[in-house]
Amino acid sequence: MGNFSKLGGHKILVHGGGKVATQMASRLGVSTQMVEGRRITDLPMLEVVTMVYGGLVNKNIVASLQAIGVNALGLTGADGGIIRAEKRPVKTIDYGYVGDIKAVNSDILAGFLAQSLVPVIAPLSYSMEGSLLNTNADTIASVIAVALAGKYKVSLVYCFEKDGVLSNPEDDSSVIPQLTPLEYASYKETGTINKGMIPKLDNAFDALRSGVDRVVVCHAREVLSAVKGDKGTQIRL
Amino acid sequence: MGNFSKLGGHKILVHGGGKVATQMASRLGVSTQMVEGRRITDLPMLEVVTMVYGGLVNKNIVASLQAIGVNALGLTGADGGIIRAEKRPVKTIDYGYVGDIKAVNSDILAGFLAQSLVPVIAPLSYSMEGSLLNTNADTIASVIAVALAGKYKVSLVYCFEKDGVLSNPEDDSSVIPQLTPLEYASYKETGTINKGMIPKLDNAFDALRSGVDRVVVCHAREVLSAVKGDKGTQIRL
Repeated sequence: MGNFSKLGGHKILVHGGGKVATQMASRLGVSTQMVEGRRITDLPMLEVVTMVYGGLVNKNIVASLQAIGVNALGLTGADGGIIRAEKRPVKTIDYGYVGDIKAVNSDILAGFLAQSLVPVIAPLSYSMEGSLLNTNADTIASVIAVALAGKYKVSLVYCFEKDGVLSNPEDDSSVIPQLTPLEYASYKETGTINKGMIPKLDNAFDALRSGVDRVVVCHAREVLSAVKGDKGTQIRL
Repeated sequence: MGNFSKLGGHKILVHGGGKVATQMASRLGVSTQMVEGRRITDLPMLEVVTMVYGGLVNKNIVASLQAIGVNALGLTGADGGIIRAEKRPVKTIDYGYVGDIKAVNSDILAGFLAQSLVPVIAPLSYSMEGSLLNTNADTIASVIAVALAGKYKVSLVYCFEKDGVLSNPEDDSSVIPQLTPLEYASYKETGTINKGMIPKLDNAFDALRSGVDRVVVCHAREVLSAVKGDKGTQIRL
């Protein structure tokens, strides 16, 4: 949080909250079902993620940022209509109330930035039918970065619990400093880059191809160095 | 919701959620304690109201308004720093994490209105120490109306389950069309106006004295007539 507050320029934070949601669901007797890392979101689970992502996690981040002088503005995709989606069609798996993003309202977001506000975005979108929809945070970060790339020079930073993409998953110090599509393909072929990283990196390359200036994967504590190109894994075309 | 969407001009909705919070607290094994109609908010209850007011209730109202073409923006007092408060000092009763409002940021709210957004405000404020604080919705509505009265001609409409202030609490049709401070004093003396209405009406008269143009108490379904002066109880100085 302290590092985030020191980032210069306009900034937006996109957060998750899956672990807290799973704990809260359990306390409420709502069972958690995951398929390939994605949460099945029936109506009781939608209630849980709305409370946890949109309320508990989002508003506590906002209040913590306010306390260190960052004028944070907590949002879900429904607020200001910033992330409109459609409920994912049922093919082999019914994910329930999960959103596939259809549109980002970058004008509204730009208006918030012009007011010197720092949007803090929960992983929820909404449908024209008036439903909230559970939506992957990495995907939200990527589509927002792309939507704003027409108006700003955008850096997209994926923070997680490792220092970057690892060339040896057993060795936390084996951070790959730069990753190109060719290298990515080869790491995927050898299985070095594993299932969990693939959607994140696919999003990362998509964002670069769609006009985002810089994409980095790093540990949250190194975000200040990572946006300068000095830490984490820099994604390159 | 449909009536609210038809109101002309800029508009802001302030909501409660006490009943849903009490139900959710009960499901989580958190006990609800009320003193003179006010909720004692210890840390487990603060977690519940943050989830329910800031998440479940607020975001569902926002999504429902989006579905009928209203560009709603869900907020707590922490978002954009719009309602800063201090934790209520302990005198005879320790209300816990309850906020006494210290400042409203009307510039940020005016910025949202200028973006044609419709703020939907949950009854939560925040402290400079980074805590969310439970805060009465009627009080929030009143202080926001007063804060905006310097920039706009403001009507403050209190919606509840009756058609207005009643001259006979047993008779729902006995709506008092206009209420002045003298009449209010006399109804209080005879006990016609009872405990629950007194803080609401005190807020109402305070708002009028502080520059709010019109204050009405009415049923939600009559909000369109009430703002024109045709329904509910019009509060007058």
